[in-house]
Amino acid sequence: MTDVEQLVATHRPLLEEAVAATRKRGYWSAFPESPSTKVWGDEAPAAGKAAFDGLLGKEFAIATAGATGTVAPEHSPYGIDFDVHYPHMTASGVDELIRAASAAMPAWRDAGPLTRAAVCVEILQRLNARNFELAHAVMHTTGQSFVMAFQAGGAHALDRGLEAVAYTYDAMAAVPASVAWEKPRGRGEPQRLTKTYTIAPRGVALVIGCTTFPTWNGFPGLFASLCAGNPVIVKPHPHAVLPLALTVSVARAVLAEYGFDDNLVSLAVESEGEGLASALALRPEVRVIDFTGSSEYGNWLESNAHQALVFTEKSGVNTVVFDSTDDASAAAANLAYSLSLYSGQMCTTPQVLLVPSSEIDSFVDALSSALESLLGEPARAVAMLGALVDDRVADRLAAAESLGKVAIASKPVSHNEFPAARVRTPLVLRVTSSDIDAFGAECFGPVAFVVETRDTAESLELWRMLTTTRGALTASVYSTDPAVLDEASRIAVDAGVSLSVNLTADVYVNQTSAFSDFHATGANPAANASLTDAAFVTGRFRVVEIRRPG
Amino acid sequence: MTDVEQLVATHRPLLEEAVAATRKRGYWSAFPESPSTKVWGDEAPAAGKAAFDGLLGKEFAIATAGATGTVAPEHSPYGIDFDVHYPHMTASGVDELIRAASAAMPAWRDAGPLTRAAVCVEILQRLNARNFELAHAVMHTTGQSFVMAFQAGGAHALDRGLEAVAYTYDAMAAVPASVAWEKPRGRGEPQRLTKTYTIAPRGVALVIGCTTFPTWNGFPGLFASLCAGNPVIVKPHPHAVLPLALTVSVARAVLAEYGFDDNLVSLAVESEGEGLASALALRPEVRVIDFTGSSEYGNWLESNAHQALVFTEKSGVNTVVFDSTDDASAAAANLAYSLSLYSGQMCTTPQVLLVPSSEIDSFVDALSSALESLLGEPARAVAMLGALVDDRVADRLAAAESLGKVAIASKPVSHNEFPAARVRTPLVLRVTSSDIDAFGAECFGPVAFVVETRDTAESLELWRMLTTTRGALTASVYSTDPAVLDEASRIAVDAGVSLSVNLTADVYVNQTSAFSDFHATGANPAANASLTDAAFVTGRFRVVEIRRPG
Repeated sequence: MTDVEQLVATHRPLLEEAVAATRKRGYWSAFPESPSTKVWGDEAPAAGKAAFDGLLGKEFAIATAGATGTVAPEHSPYGIDFDVHYPHMTASGVDELIRAASAAMPAWRDAGPLTRAAVCVEILQRLNARNFELAHAVMHTTGQSFVMAFQAGGAHALDRGLEAVAYTYDAMAAVPASVAWEKPRGRGEPQRLTKTYTIAPRGVALVIGCTTFPTWNGFPGLFASLCAGNPVIVKPHPHAVLPLALTVSVARAVLAEYGFDDNLVSLAVESEGEGLASALALRPEVRVIDFTGSSEYGNWLESNAHQALVFTEKSGVNTVVFDSTDDASAAAANLAYSLSLYSGQMCTTPQVLLVPSSEIDSFVDALSSALESLLGEPARAVAMLGALVDDRVADRLAAAESLGKVAIASKPVSHNEFPAARVRTPLVLRVTSSDIDAFGAECFGPVAFVVETRDTAESLELWRMLTTTRGALTASVYSTDPAVLDEASRIAVDAGVSLSVNLTADVYVNQTSAFSDFHATGANPAANASLTDAAFVTGRFRVVEIRRPG
Repeated sequence: MTDVEQLVATHRPLLEEAVAATRKRGYWSAFPESPSTKVWGDEAPAAGKAAFDGLLGKEFAIATAGATGTVAPEHSPYGIDFDVHYPHMTASGVDELIRAASAAMPAWRDAGPLTRAAVCVEILQRLNARNFELAHAVMHTTGQSFVMAFQAGGAHALDRGLEAVAYTYDAMAAVPASVAWEKPRGRGEPQRLTKTYTIAPRGVALVIGCTTFPTWNGFPGLFASLCAGNPVIVKPHPHAVLPLALTVSVARAVLAEYGFDDNLVSLAVESEGEGLASALALRPEVRVIDFTGSSEYGNWLESNAHQALVFTEKSGVNTVVFDSTDDASAAAANLAYSLSLYSGQMCTTPQVLLVPSSEIDSFVDALSSALESLLGEPARAVAMLGALVDDRVADRLAAAESLGKVAIASKPVSHNEFPAARVRTPLVLRVTSSDIDAFGAECFGPVAFVVETRDTAESLELWRMLTTTRGALTASVYSTDPAVLDEASRIAVDAGVSLSVNLTADVYVNQTSAFSDFHATGANPAANASLTDAAFVTGRFRVVEIRRPG
């Protein structure tokens, strides 16, 4: 057995389990989400920290075809000295980068779907083994707390990556490698052809990373494209390079170890504002693009990169429709958690809370108490809130105070371990349904609007309008009235947004579970794709048929 | 059992057989391709002809929301009086047309995937029952011979339609309707959620038909979109309306019969040059477009209809690489058939025949003899060639004589039954590899170029270059040398074109079989999609999830 055959034999059972999980959609996960030493052993946390520390202030050991010199564009939201240098990719190196990626493609294509899927699983497992190191990298680029970085930036991202591999492998495996075709022909001999079907990559793939979830949002596109046979160029956001640099570095090592060209996955790092994404996105060789970020740039890609399949996750306005509840404090606690987690710097955090005027005072009181109870103790608050990722979020939070009546003020929280971190509790503004200019545009960060409506009927219509015109990645409804819940379900389906109903315990609207929950629907303006469904993967490869008599 | 439940029970076995066939890819067909009275009974041919005759010179009985007055834009290539009037759709009626289509969507969505698939199967079977009538309609709009119209325009088109239904249903059925999700949680109770997944349509779908294969090329997009839950607006080419008008009329009748809004499928007929396709294609409500036609317009759609998923089949230059054969006359007979069938008015007809200089004289001689033998007898020639569809093809044929040295002249063939039909044997020009300006652009119609190359190595490289730069829907190679066939297979996969090898019997490069052969790859400039693969259907619907505790 060759090394590659051994790898396939090792990973095939997990791969098949993962494929089955995508169809059952019950709970399933391949990567431990707890950083407990019971899972990882006593040495793992310190070793991971040491590995991370060893990266700081140095040149990151990676080669990028076409890069010249180095660049160190990151700053830790926690204030530590970062200064990690990467090969600097500029527009002038793009020819060479794309040439290297393209040259790597044929042997990877010829390896076939199962081998490619097995190599992808191996990359994910190696990343999992380095999750403590990866979590520090995620934490210090995004501002996530360590535990969140370990979970959302590590285990859950790896699950999303595996899910993409499972969908892609399943779609490729649905096409047989060959068939003996035999068409009956009256009394004569049948017509006979032997037909072979080869899975062919679409071309060079580009992954454009975001600041806040570089791995969670980056892995699905990266692994789907790679598994389908496409070389992948990863262009991280300049503020969140390290998690993807580690990823690319592990991918390249695994590829090389199994005899493939490591330029199948490459890292293209720029300084902020150099426009590298656009220089790459319009190249004719680039045939798949995955993007997470602003609607403005996502829409630009959709309208201009005609040569490529473009998958975008953009901005939106996530809404909670509050009608009634039989457990007001549990509902408030659940919402307080959703607003606070990572300081609302999630594309899935609710921003607009629609509450009938009859309920609004008690709603705000309950929410205020819940936030106080959740965030009153600084150590716990810091673990929940993480740090503001950058000046833009901090400035937006400061400016937001003028957008409505301050119902719950944002307070600074001091961080013992990292005093330079900017930690703020959520700002909750109170407005009316006519203030749509204020609450109807995405205000990314710890800012929420409690919007007073006449009644739930108005709330529901406002939610529908916001979702269909501004887009949304999540929605949530609280009601004890079955008629309201029915109507909310109808609106969710009509407007194309996933809905969480009456969440009062420890499941939160802003969290989704790979293999079970779809993230985004692709059916409203916030995203044109869903993580992960068949539509996200099937276009990443093509089938070439060869037929001959006999 | 309701009527709809009965329909589902009736059609489910066929549907499941069709889904299985897409995965096995052996020979499978649901519709008889022979017009023999042994299959259809003695009355069927005359009844079908009478039904067709009964449509001529009248208003076609169909309602189109937003239409005003009527239009009769067709002329039979066989010269019979056509004068069928349809509701006239212009840009000013588009609002109303789209409003009617959109209003029909929710109930169709709520019917669910299986019911929609069963209704689609019923439509296909009703069309099959009217295949004699449909074949006359195809014949007298496209110029196909009757038998070809019956097969390619009827049975094979219906198979392609069923194939699209099977792929779409299979993709929808891969998402469970609901799941009880249970995540273990240490020693405590597990987290429990009930999740439902609703298949939601993408929006209004538009099918833009072509002149030569209105049903074969139109059915896949029409039935995939409809099965996925989308209302479909069919905009036929003004010269080939009747086959699609019959289709829409049958679809509307079946939909109404089973309690659905017949505006789920509507017919939008314009006069030539009114620009209706563009008026429809840029509407924000239109979210899926299927187009068959010129590269110019297909590329325009891809670059401008950003709000929609755009599936295109455009122009290309199909190539035959002739290296060697152990049966020169059988190879020539096979190629003669491919060049002659429907006067080369197929997007799959070979246009460029690359032959090494050492072989070219004997190749041309063999081809000339084969064409003479195939087309020497006028009645047989007419059944093979059909009629030139319009002046554009006739003019192109006339102009083509100046593009090279005439190796085999095009001759007129007289048609006994329809003296007005323009019937011409193929023109074969002889050129050299440097005459790429002449042979490297699509010359749709009965025109082929025998291109003299230095050797097969030059032929293979020229083929690769033509395919990657001009696009191709088919390719063919003849060689007795395994090394040449290996290299040809590599080029086919690299360049992204399906390849037929050493066809010498009665399988032809320009014919494909639903459920087994993919038509177009989507991997070269001739098409961005393939009929039919998963990528052709998965984006036509979205999934909306609703989750609640318990």
